[in-house]
Amino acid sequence: MSYNTFGRVFRFTTWGESHGPALGAVVDGCPAGLSLSEADIQPWLDRRRPGTSRFTTQRREPDEVRILSGVFEGRTTGTPISLMIENVDQRSKDYGEVALAYRPGHADYAYDAKYGFRDYRGGGRSSARETAARVAAGAVARKVIPQVRIRAWVEAIGGDAVDPAAFDDAAIDENPFFCPDRAAAARWEVLVDAARKAGSSLGAVVTCEATGVPAGWGAPLYAKLDSELAAAIMSINAVKGVEIGDGFAAAALSGEANADAMRPGGTDAAGPRFLANHAGGIAGGIATGQPIRVRAAFKPTSSILTPVETITRDGAATEIATRGRHDPCVGIRGVPVVEAMMALVLADQALLHRAQMG
Amino acid sequence: MSYNTFGRVFRFTTWGESHGPALGAVVDGCPAGLSLSEADIQPWLDRRRPGTSRFTTQRREPDEVRILSGVFEGRTTGTPISLMIENVDQRSKDYGEVALAYRPGHADYAYDAKYGFRDYRGGGRSSARETAARVAAGAVARKVIPQVRIRAWVEAIGGDAVDPAAFDDAAIDENPFFCPDRAAAARWEVLVDAARKAGSSLGAVVTCEATGVPAGWGAPLYAKLDSELAAAIMSINAVKGVEIGDGFAAAALSGEANADAMRPGGTDAAGPRFLANHAGGIAGGIATGQPIRVRAAFKPTSSILTPVETITRDGAATEIATRGRHDPCVGIRGVPVVEAMMALVLADQALLHRAQMG
Amino acid sequence: MSYNTFGRVFRFTTWGESHGPALGAVVDGCPAGLSLSEADIQPWLDRRRPGTSRFTTQRREPDEVRILSGVFEGRTTGTPISLMIENVDQRSKDYGEVALAYRPGHADYAYDAKYGFRDYRGGGRSSARETAARVAAGAVARKVIPQVRIRAWVEAIGGDAVDPAAFDDAAIDENPFFCPDRAAAARWEVLVDAARKAGSSLGAVVTCEATGVPAGWGAPLYAKLDSELAAAIMSINAVKGVEIGDGFAAAALSGEANADAMRPGGTDAAGPRFLANHAGGIAGGIATGQPIRVRAAFKPTSSILTPVETITRDGAATEIATRGRHDPCVGIRGVPVVEAMMALVLADQALLHRAQMG
Amino acid sequence: MSYNTFGRVFRFTTWGESHGPALGAVVDGCPAGLSLSEADIQPWLDRRRPGTSRFTTQRREPDEVRILSGVFEGRTTGTPISLMIENVDQRSKDYGEVALAYRPGHADYAYDAKYGFRDYRGGGRSSARETAARVAAGAVARKVIPQVRIRAWVEAIGGDAVDPAAFDDAAIDENPFFCPDRAAAARWEVLVDAARKAGSSLGAVVTCEATGVPAGWGAPLYAKLDSELAAAIMSINAVKGVEIGDGFAAAALSGEANADAMRPGGTDAAGPRFLANHAGGIAGGIATGQPIRVRAAFKPTSSILTPVETITRDGAATEIATRGRHDPCVGIRGVPVVEAMMALVLADQALLHRAQMG
Repeated sequence: MSYNTFGRVFRFTTWGESHGPALGAVVDGCPAGLSLSEADIQPWLDRRRPGTSRFTTQRREPDEVRILSGVFEGRTTGTPISLMIENVDQRSKDYGEVALAYRPGHADYAYDAKYGFRDYRGGGRSSARETAARVAAGAVARKVIPQVRIRAWVEAIGGDAVDPAAFDDAAIDENPFFCPDRAAAARWEVLVDAARKAGSSLGAVVTCEATGVPAGWGAPLYAKLDSELAAAIMSINAVKGVEIGDGFAAAALSGEANADAMRPGGTDAAGPRFLANHAGGIAGGIATGQPIRVRAAFKPTSSILTPVETITRDGAATEIATRGRHDPCVGIRGVPVVEAMMALVLADQALLHRAQMG
Repeated sequence: MSYNTFGRVFRFTTWGESHGPALGAVVDGCPAGLSLSEADIQPWLDRRRPGTSRFTTQRREPDEVRILSGVFEGRTTGTPISLMIENVDQRSKDYGEVALAYRPGHADYAYDAKYGFRDYRGGGRSSARETAARVAAGAVARKVIPQVRIRAWVEAIGGDAVDPAAFDDAAIDENPFFCPDRAAAARWEVLVDAARKAGSSLGAVVTCEATGVPAGWGAPLYAKLDSELAAAIMSINAVKGVEIGDGFAAAALSGEANADAMRPGGTDAAGPRFLANHAGGIAGGIATGQPIRVRAAFKPTSSILTPVETITRDGAATEIATRGRHDPCVGIRGVPVVEAMMALVLADQALLHRAQMG
Repeated sequence: MSYNTFGRVFRFTTWGESHGPALGAVVDGCPAGLSLSEADIQPWLDRRRPGTSRFTTQRREPDEVRILSGVFEGRTTGTPISLMIENVDQRSKDYGEVALAYRPGHADYAYDAKYGFRDYRGGGRSSARETAARVAAGAVARKVIPQVRIRAWVEAIGGDAVDPAAFDDAAIDENPFFCPDRAAAARWEVLVDAARKAGSSLGAVVTCEATGVPAGWGAPLYAKLDSELAAAIMSINAVKGVEIGDGFAAAALSGEANADAMRPGGTDAAGPRFLANHAGGIAGGIATGQPIRVRAAFKPTSSILTPVETITRDGAATEIATRGRHDPCVGIRGVPVVEAMMALVLADQALLHRAQMG
Repeated sequence: MSYNTFGRVFRFTTWGESHGPALGAVVDGCPAGLSLSEADIQPWLDRRRPGTSRFTTQRREPDEVRILSGVFEGRTTGTPISLMIENVDQRSKDYGEVALAYRPGHADYAYDAKYGFRDYRGGGRSSARETAARVAAGAVARKVIPQVRIRAWVEAIGGDAVDPAAFDDAAIDENPFFCPDRAAAARWEVLVDAARKAGSSLGAVVTCEATGVPAGWGAPLYAKLDSELAAAIMSINAVKGVEIGDGFAAAALSGEANADAMRPGGTDAAGPRFLANHAGGIAGGIATGQPIRVRAAFKPTSSILTPVETITRDGAATEIATRGRHDPCVGIRGVPVVEAMMALVLADQALLHRAQMG
């Protein structure tokens, strides 16, 4: 079976394949009365849009979103919001050999094993193109939680990390890598160009921070805020790891070193002032009022020009070099997607918390 | 709100607090006709049981499970299986000061912020004691997927990792650390003793591997096998990071280096033979037939004897040193819990896949 | 598969068999801070308790409930509330022949067809004994919606209906039939006695009314208030029909006759005063602020002493006369169960609505 | 909140308003490999299409469905199937006065009470136009359960019922009323014409029968087959009552009269031959292998030309006569909708049962 719906109260369902006529999302459980139009959604889609620099896939998609329901006279009505994005630049003929052989690291073999056959054109449902629908849904989620600021960036590409001391929020939108460190951005230009020209690809680490989340959001035990974020982010194509706060680094610390000590005088009325945020803003699955911090590991794009050993659908040995048009570093365009998933999880938890408070 | 149910078709709900009369799980959606008795569950609980060595909490709990429903004449009936474990060794008087002040890193402050008050005795619902119910439910899950072998171990404590070359499956159950490397186990004895005596605690990394999972399990896109595992494992107390396969290491690799090349001749009838398993057995959210590999980062126990700055419920500055009885390294007893969550996710995905196949 | 959880935000899961050691419910998603003790639950269980008159089963069960979790110092903590009721008066030996042959109208054959075998003792999971757990959970639900008054009664037994003009709320708790019409109660005493002595059984109609439900509760389209009530009430043992408001009678009316005309001056601040309530207080799946009215048809108990043609497990022709101890009219004890389901649905919708309103 | 998704494993989500640009459904959890094209869906939509006789609304909608995802080379891929139907004959100007005053019996007031405002054009989301999406989704469900035949008809209009002795399946599709009794159809022509000309409307009863459902489908206790059907059918616009089998009539019977006695020799291999079907094919929430029989009560259309007392949005007294274009008897076009809901519930239960059987 497939499950293409996410969320408990604020829910979204995505649909669509890379080379089908369109893709979209249905957002359900959105409160009524929020102002919403295509203009609220389009900018987020534009950040994720392919073909905007030589560091992303050269597929040209305008990614224009249409709202088909759930909005009346500029405001949400409380009924399902249907969002649709047409595909216009499919080139399915590029995928002849993908139909016949499996790309290692891609979902090709696994989909065949599960479903008996697959829509091989551009990866079908397993294409990262699906994430456009998530970004559109995420734009709606942002309207539900206007008090929250969500910001993601690329922290490392191919093992080359930004210098935390050089972090400049303003830099993030000034380069094609969502890189907060201008020097690192310059290095990555060389690095990604080299990978691209070599027919290779690179992995990346994306960090996402949400500020303004009040203490108390989170639904223990199995819809803990960190558990939901882990599910949401691990569901993004190519993500293989998720950390909350210090993540794996915390596993090497002592209890004292990892403690987020508290003092009186938080910005929140009665809340504490925290002296550190090793926990990434979540304790016991519930927000502490500190910034929520999440990191995501993106593996390198599986579709590469460099030939790799594989087998055909019939089980014969072969090699595959994936032509088509692909991102040399899929993690870059992961930035708006991680932000969207953060927004979607937080909107859901915001509504759940509201139900609790009475 | 709280969500204490996990799963889609094979589901479990846990309940209970650290110092309440009992805790338990209701397992629903289990197929009928499986042989099941307390004797199938108790050994797994015994592996997680506290007080078995000086490296775990000294609370003495027999953790005896009773099956209250869903089994008739030794077989599951298809109806809900209610499992109950009585608490017998509560010492609530130890928690006087936890009632008044917040332990940094613990859920104390967050629960108060969410619910307005909390059962402070032994951490109440946020106590790792709850994981006993997961382990009991996990034992039922194992019966649903007898073809799968699930095995976890501690890979590192306080930053001191095992030597992969020294890995010996037989060693895991021979030392109190679930350590597959005898030399590392000897080092950890010193390390954990030192932390314990210093009133400190240590983080740990747990690895879990499931073999025998057939290609095809997994429910894309938002119930992908990796997404469900991430949610399941991130919901465990103290876990702050989850990796599938190479995880964050993959983010530093090139596409070629990360490719799991295939050749004909897999053990599975028509399946491929994989030359590597960077992906941890999951592609596109679906099992490839390779071993499923997951890593979990456990932060150090928050409840430590070393005093830490904090605030009282009334917002006044204070220090807290947590007396009570606590694990110096909560990751150690995380091993059977990670295994249980793996079993619970896989049982659910097995049934979902069955629905698909017809 | 089985699904033993009901609800969206306020959820409950029941477990247990007629002749197992105990049965119970886990209530999850209950807001924190509500006062709750066994004394809040027991009176509702006592209303449903068997053996209180000669018109119900003679099984003697004290139905004492224990709260095992989710309450601390007399208030709900927001965590799962585990409720347990021990079975003390099982007489499994009475059911020898039920093990071998199928009672027509009962779930015996269907359970075997589904699960391959069944716990035949007292009907196992399909026994109306399970409804004790619902009543216990319903008592918790009532605490969530203190502004709502829920009241059910028996409207007809074996086709003999109460006289609406003789309706007296005070009468309901004065006779063993929950009958609001004292003359009808006297007639039913004769009627049910005759059925009981003849080894027969009788059907019944139960009406339930909830007042104080504010306009706006309900979650269209597939969790409409009427849809949820229909599901909840049809899930009760022996119920074969559900009506909202005029129900089937409305199907014989014209639009004008069925219109619930409105005038200014409702009790609700800005709400209308309705001149009729054909709709049973629900329009478009949403409460109108009028009383919610539901009717449930209970079929006659299937377990009767009168022999009926049937087959054995092996497919041979036989006759069955069900000994054991059974209600001559299961609809009577359905009254507290229908009330409980009403409370459970409304508590869930109350919380859902709260999430919406912000 | 709103919940516009129905189902457990085979799920569908509908979206769209009466006067928006389009409406649709996303079907998720459909097995892969089923043949599917628009031609499989269109005939069912055509049965429900408005404007085909003078006995339905005169709105002219071609109701052409497009499949936007989830199908590749004529077969389902296992991924979400997005279905879209464009609205082409909106006349929103007809609804000026509905914007200002509440139609008694309609959802107008309730939506305002819930959401604070509403899309009043043609009833917005509460319009029966939404059921087109259900019918489209239902056509997909039918492909999942080809062994099942689902057939509904109108049993009564305005209290005038068909003669069971005159039942002729072939007649159902020969008249504009889905009436199985030709004499009744002739009477109804006069009856409905009279109501239409008088600016009135009529209620109706729809019966639906599913044959070929194997014993064993159904997921007790809270997803019982009858409970799911009740929820599904009560969620249809204008439905106020649901019966399984004899329904309310069973409440007037004795246990012997209501017993569905069994003899050896069923058509099913080892199954019984039933001598009656009072239970409507469901016992204990599980299918018995007999035909599943459900009845639905449709109230008369609320939108009538006859003026009715009501209030304005501002709370002032007024009268309303609904112009626009409306069905004089909304139950007629309910026939394909009831069938669709039956198909959707059964497809879901079929897959759930499959998960159980292994």
